[in-house]
Amino acid sequence: MDPSVSGLTQRLAEADQSHLLQFWSELSPEEQADLSLDLQGMDFKEINGFFKNAMEVSSSSKHEKMDARMEPVPREVLGSVSRDRGSVKEWEQAGLHHISQSKVAALLLAGGQGTRLGVSYPKGMYDVGLPSHKTLFQIQAERILKLQQLAEQKHKIKCCIPWYIMTSGRTMESTKDFFSRHNYFGLDKSNIIFFQQGMLPAMDYNGKIILESKGKLSMAPDGNGGLYRALGNQGIMDDMERRGIQFIHVYCVDNILVKVADPAFVGFCVQKGADCGAKVVEKTNPTEAVGVVCKVDGHYQVVEYSEITLATAEKRSSDGRLMFNAGNVANHFFSFSFLRDVVQKFEPKLQHHVAQKKIPFVDSQGHLIKPDKPNGIKMEKFVFDIFQLAKTFVVYEVLREDEFSPLKNADSQDGKDTPSTAKHALISLHHRWVLNAGGHFIDENGRRVPAIPSLKDGTDLPIKCEVCPLVSYGGEGLEELVKGREFHPTLMIDEHGVHELVKNGV
Amino acid sequence: MDPSVSGLTQRLAEADQSHLLQFWSELSPEEQADLSLDLQGMDFKEINGFFKNAMEVSSSSKHEKMDARMEPVPREVLGSVSRDRGSVKEWEQAGLHHISQSKVAALLLAGGQGTRLGVSYPKGMYDVGLPSHKTLFQIQAERILKLQQLAEQKHKIKCCIPWYIMTSGRTMESTKDFFSRHNYFGLDKSNIIFFQQGMLPAMDYNGKIILESKGKLSMAPDGNGGLYRALGNQGIMDDMERRGIQFIHVYCVDNILVKVADPAFVGFCVQKGADCGAKVVEKTNPTEAVGVVCKVDGHYQVVEYSEITLATAEKRSSDGRLMFNAGNVANHFFSFSFLRDVVQKFEPKLQHHVAQKKIPFVDSQGHLIKPDKPNGIKMEKFVFDIFQLAKTFVVYEVLREDEFSPLKNADSQDGKDTPSTAKHALISLHHRWVLNAGGHFIDENGRRVPAIPSLKDGTDLPIKCEVCPLVSYGGEGLEELVKGREFHPTLMIDEHGVHELVKNGV
Repeated sequence: MDPSVSGLTQRLAEADQSHLLQFWSELSPEEQADLSLDLQGMDFKEINGFFKNAMEVSSSSKHEKMDARMEPVPREVLGSVSRDRGSVKEWEQAGLHHISQSKVAALLLAGGQGTRLGVSYPKGMYDVGLPSHKTLFQIQAERILKLQQLAEQKHKIKCCIPWYIMTSGRTMESTKDFFSRHNYFGLDKSNIIFFQQGMLPAMDYNGKIILESKGKLSMAPDGNGGLYRALGNQGIMDDMERRGIQFIHVYCVDNILVKVADPAFVGFCVQKGADCGAKVVEKTNPTEAVGVVCKVDGHYQVVEYSEITLATAEKRSSDGRLMFNAGNVANHFFSFSFLRDVVQKFEPKLQHHVAQKKIPFVDSQGHLIKPDKPNGIKMEKFVFDIFQLAKTFVVYEVLREDEFSPLKNADSQDGKDTPSTAKHALISLHHRWVLNAGGHFIDENGRRVPAIPSLKDGTDLPIKCEVCPLVSYGGEGLEELVKGREFHPTLMIDEHGVHELVKNGV
Repeated sequence: MDPSVSGLTQRLAEADQSHLLQFWSELSPEEQADLSLDLQGMDFKEINGFFKNAMEVSSSSKHEKMDARMEPVPREVLGSVSRDRGSVKEWEQAGLHHISQSKVAALLLAGGQGTRLGVSYPKGMYDVGLPSHKTLFQIQAERILKLQQLAEQKHKIKCCIPWYIMTSGRTMESTKDFFSRHNYFGLDKSNIIFFQQGMLPAMDYNGKIILESKGKLSMAPDGNGGLYRALGNQGIMDDMERRGIQFIHVYCVDNILVKVADPAFVGFCVQKGADCGAKVVEKTNPTEAVGVVCKVDGHYQVVEYSEITLATAEKRSSDGRLMFNAGNVANHFFSFSFLRDVVQKFEPKLQHHVAQKKIPFVDSQGHLIKPDKPNGIKMEKFVFDIFQLAKTFVVYEVLREDEFSPLKNADSQDGKDTPSTAKHALISLHHRWVLNAGGHFIDENGRRVPAIPSLKDGTDLPIKCEVCPLVSYGGEGLEELVKGREFHPTLMIDEHGVHELVKNGV
C-alpha cells in the first residue's frame, strides 16, 4: 500500500524518520510490502523516547562519580560454596524439595545472535567439540531431566521443572525446529515454553533509524533485559502462575557449566527469604572484563567493568582480596511475586543502555557502507537492571572452575571464552568428578596419571573424560561406577555405562 | 687415542657402560677424538650413583603419603603485598638501603634450552613482540640499571648490583656474545658474571647412558638446582664474598614481569632475619599446574603439582581460599651465609629428581629412533630443593598480574605462558601504571577509553603502552610525565620522553 495512503508518511514525518522511505520508489512491490509491514508495527514515538532517555542517561556524569558510590556486598547477604561449605548440602536439599513440589522453573536467555562466535544459528545449537558432540541445548536439557529425576527419587513424587526459553526474532524458528528435531532431548514438549524478546532499531547518533538496505531497517534484540517486557506481553507470567511456579532460575545460554535450576542456589535464596539473587564467582584479577555485583547508593546492582575506574577495580579488603570481587555470571534467582511486580510495574520505567556499535548502513546515495568505527547505537535493557528494585537481595558465590565457562568468541590464538576453553572446562570438571569418586586414570604404560598432569614433559596427555548429565547432575552418584577402577582416557560415562574410547575413535 | 690404551675401555666396562663404544670403529678420527674427550671428562661411578639414588627416591612410596604430611604456610612467616600493604613501602626502603650498600646481587637462572618455546637460542634473547622489541635480557638489564640509580639517588652513594648469570654448556657462548654485541645494555661488563651449570647424560631405565648418535652422548643440563654445584666449582661464592654480597635474589629468565633484585622482597626477607625466602602468587584454581610452597614433615618445600592429589589440591581454609595456595614463581632469596653453607656442605647430599622423557637414541643397529613414549630419564636437581635446610624460611606473596607471566610455550591456540600472554601481561601492567599516575587514554574520536576496555563491542582496542625500565622500575616516577594528560595508544615512555606511535608505525 502506498505509504501516504496508510498514514505512514505522516507518522514518519511526525517522528522525524521520513528518511526511511527515501528509496521507496526503487523497491520492488514485495520489498515495499515488507518495509511497509515492518514500519506499520512500530511505535516511533516510543522509540524516539527510548533514544532520548537512553542518550541522556548515557551522557550524564553519573559514571564519573560511580567510584565513590560503590560499596561491596556485605558478608551477611552472601552465601558461598567455599566459605559456607557446611551449609551447601542443606541448601541443596531445600532446593530439591522445592523442585519436587514443581515450584521451580528454569528460564533461559537465548536471544543473542552469536555474532562474536561467528555462527549464523543460535548459540545453544553449538557443539564445542566434546567427545559426545552434544550441543549446549542438549547438555542443559539433560541436566533438567536429571534434576527432575533426583527430586522425584528423593521425594517419591512426580515433578517438573518447566523450561522457559527466550529467543529473539532471528533465532525463534531455528531454535524451535532444533528442539523438535531432537525430540526435546527427552523432556516433555509441553514443559518447554518458547517466547520471543522484542527487537529495536539501531539508530545513528542523531536518533535516525538506520537502514541496513534500501528497504530494510537495521534491527537488533532489545537486550537480555527485554526479558521483562516479553514475559508480560507473551503471557509467560500467566503460564507460570497457572503452573504454580514460585522460584525462577534465569541464566544465559552460553555457560557450558551452568547448573540449570541449581537446587543449592535456589535453596539458599529461598532460605534467605530473597526475592532476587545473583550467582557470582570471585574476580581475582582487577582488570578482568567482568561486571561486579555491589551496592550503589544503597541499592544492589551490577557495575559493568567499563564503568569502573582502575583505582576502584584494584581496591582490596584487609584480607587481600579485591573489594569488588563478586563477578556476575548471569545466573539469577527471582521469586515469582517479585518477577510479576517487575513485569507489571517496574519494567516500563527502566531505561535502555546505549551500546555504541559499528552498524552497516546505506548512505543517502544508496550505497552500503561498513563503517570502521562506531556510527550508531543499539538500545538494550539488561536483565540485572532490576536488582535495585529487590527488597531482599542475596548473593551466592560459587567456584569458577565448577560453574562458569562462557562461550563467547570463536577459537583463536590467546582466545578467551572460546569453544576450546568451554570444552576443556567441562572435561576438567568431569575429570575431577571421577577422581573425587575414587576413579583413576592410567596412561598407555598402565601408570596412574597425576591429578594435575605434568604436560611439560610430554609424558602425560590431558585427560579426556565426559559424564552424561543423565548420569550425574553435579558429580553425585559416580562412586558405584568408578570407585577403585582404573581407566584409559577417553572415558565416557553415559546412561549405557562406562566406556573407554580408543584413541582415534573420538 | 685408542680407548683401550687410555684406560677408557676398562673404566666403561667397570661402570657397565661399554655400549658407548659400540660404534667406535665406524667413527671418523674427529668423531673418535670428540667422543673420547667427552668420555674422559666423565665420572661414571658418580653418574651411576646419581642414577641409583634418583631411581630409588623416585620409586619410593613417599609421594603416596605426601597429602597427610603437608601443612600450609603459617601466616607468621608470610608477607603479602595485598594483605600487609602498610608495610610494603617500609620493606622497599630497607631493600633499597641494602642495595645502596652494594650488598645485594641478582642471580639469573638461564641454562634452560627453550625446547618448548621452540627456539634454538637462549630464552633470554627472545623478543615477545613488545612495541620496543626488547628482549628478556635487555628488560632485566635495564631494571637492574634503574634500581641502582634509584638506590644511588636516594642514598647519595655509588652502588652496584652484580648480576650472576648461569648458562648451560649449550647457551654459554651465544649468551655472552649477545651481551657483548649489545654492549651489556649499559651495565658495567665487570659486574655481569657468567657461569655455567653442569650437564648430565640421559639414561635409559636400566641405567645405560643414551647415545644420541653413534659418537655422541645425549646430554642435558642438570636442572636449575645444578646452580649450587656450579656456584662452588666456578668460584662464584668467592666472587660474591670478595664483593661483600650479603643477599642474593635468584630468579628464572622466563618471567617477563620479574622485579630483578626486588627491594621490597629483599627488605622483607632481611627484616624477618630469613636465610631463605620464596616469592609466591596466590593459586586460585585447584588444578593450575604450579608447585606450591608448604611444609612437609615440618620443613619448607615446594610440592610440585604432579605430586599432589586432587583432594589436597582442592582443600580450602575457612576463608574459602585454597589451603595450599602459595604458588611458586621461581623467585628466591638467599642470605650469602646460607648459600655458602648449601654450596659447601649440603649440595652433595641432595638427590636428583627423575624426569621421564622421550629421548631420541641410536639402537644397537645404529638407527636413530625417535620414541613416541618416554624411554629414559633426565636427572635434575631443583633450585628449591634446599628450602628444607633453611633455619628461617619466609614466604612473600605478590600479585600475579604485577609480577608473574612466564614465557614457556610457543604461541598456539589456547596457549598458556606464550609470547602473546607475556607481551599482554607487560603491556597491561604498564597501562595500569600510567592510569594510576593520572594519565588517560583516548580513542580515535578523542573519547577516554575505560580502564577495562569493553572489547566486545569492538569499540575499544586493547591499549598498547610500554614504559622503558630506565624510566620506571615499578611504576614510580610517572606522575610528572603523564598526570592529567591524554594519550593515543600506542604510548611509549622511554629515556627520551613520551611518544605516541602512529597506528602502523609499531
